[in-house]
Amino acid sequence: MLIIAEKINATRKSIAAALKARDGDYIIKTAVDQARAGADYIDVNGGDPHQDVEVENMAWLIDLVQKHTKLPVSVDSANPDAVRKGLAMAAGKPILNSISLETARLEALLPILGEYDCMVVALLMSDGGTPMGVDDRLENAATLIENITAAGKKLDEIIVDPCFLPISADQTSGFSVVEAIAAIRKQWPDVHIGGGLSNISYGLPKRGYVNQAALSQCIFAGMDAAIVNPCAEGIMATILAAEALAGKDEFCMNYVTAEREGKLR
Amino acid sequence: MLIIAEKINATRKSIAAALKARDGDYIIKTAVDQARAGADYIDVNGGDPHQDVEVENMAWLIDLVQKHTKLPVSVDSANPDAVRKGLAMAAGKPILNSISLETARLEALLPILGEYDCMVVALLMSDGGTPMGVDDRLENAATLIENITAAGKKLDEIIVDPCFLPISADQTSGFSVVEAIAAIRKQWPDVHIGGGLSNISYGLPKRGYVNQAALSQCIFAGMDAAIVNPCAEGIMATILAAEALAGKDEFCMNYVTAEREGKLR
Repeated sequence: MLIIAEKINATRKSIAAALKARDGDYIIKTAVDQARAGADYIDVNGGDPHQDVEVENMAWLIDLVQKHTKLPVSVDSANPDAVRKGLAMAAGKPILNSISLETARLEALLPILGEYDCMVVALLMSDGGTPMGVDDRLENAATLIENITAAGKKLDEIIVDPCFLPISADQTSGFSVVEAIAAIRKQWPDVHIGGGLSNISYGLPKRGYVNQAALSQCIFAGMDAAIVNPCAEGIMATILAAEALAGKDEFCMNYVTAEREGKLR
Repeated sequence: MLIIAEKINATRKSIAAALKARDGDYIIKTAVDQARAGADYIDVNGGDPHQDVEVENMAWLIDLVQKHTKLPVSVDSANPDAVRKGLAMAAGKPILNSISLETARLEALLPILGEYDCMVVALLMSDGGTPMGVDDRLENAATLIENITAAGKKLDEIIVDPCFLPISADQTSGFSVVEAIAAIRKQWPDVHIGGGLSNISYGLPKRGYVNQAALSQCIFAGMDAAIVNPCAEGIMATILAAEALAGKDEFCMNYVTAEREGKLR
């Protein structure tokens, strides 16, 4: 399971404030806490309406994260300059988060993707919008995977994000995305599947319960990556429990080891 | 979803002590707490090595539960005299918990089953032991359902318990039972499916996380009944979240209503 830790994101008020004040201690603490909780990658988003500022933000954030954790970063932006800056600075093998079938984004990011040794999140959105069912997700996945492999990436360097939509708006949203994950897993056994799952609980109370229930269903269906807050109560424990239930943790060693390390919270 | 509340069971030390001391207040509190948490049935097990004592225990417990909640009971015993006593006393439409393919149990309980207007838990165990895979569960289900319908029950009066086994002992146990639930749901759309799920986490730390992750996966696969402790943190919330994700809660009304009623805990 690839755990991509989502907290360092300028859409969060506390991160936006830390960015504005150049409060490095807050960023470092957020990165280190997520690393200790079990993150494999630290997602870094310095989004700003001003393009130059976003590039500066990205550089500042990645520098801090890399000085204080040993984890690779996930370079989270749709701004080609910020993406290029992030990938150029990144140690190890980072993630580009994310490319999609939206023409402008695809054309801007595909050439950059080919230049760096990185993983990539392939978000199944297109100019037609967000896919809602299983068939449209499979179609988008086929086209996007074709583009990304043509740019030189292997299947196991791709993390297909099936687009998680709020069940509060459409009661088929949960069912569809789980079925789509199972269908993608069947068609492309070697790609990773996962994404920013918490959107599924948008508009509902006690979102943690919905996010955890969704994680468990998606992991059973074949999801093996997640953009989550690993510090949130129950998230890492649910992921490890769901994997053990899905038969992916022999003798429950990962689950039991996580308990010994104080990570089942 | 049928929530069968499991706490009044003589295998629990506190219940055994209350039975011995005839501490009615403790039993009443346990029943009322479970009813408030969202139970549909109160399971009652007065198990005792002495057959006569179990019959007395069953009568005492059911009387208390029925005087202090409006819920039907689930008569939980393999002792034919205790089962008969319980079903005879039960108001409304109780559950017989449980019949199985074990010859002695089947021959003793099948005739009683035909005499009462009740639901029945059909545990897929046989003289050969506990089923481990999908095919043996389907075979046992076919034989047991045939016997129970021949005794006069309709399919929607049967709750098929697929046998939940510890994943700590065998890493395929979680995967198999979820797949079996999906297969049973496909073959018999009208039966209920569910049972005492918490056995799945036996031997592991922080069992609540494993139970919740399993509930979510099983509900997605088609489970619509559960023998659980509805007072345990996260159980009712997980059940309602999993149903909403599985497309069984239009506009998430049940989930949101449960929050308003203080039941999402």
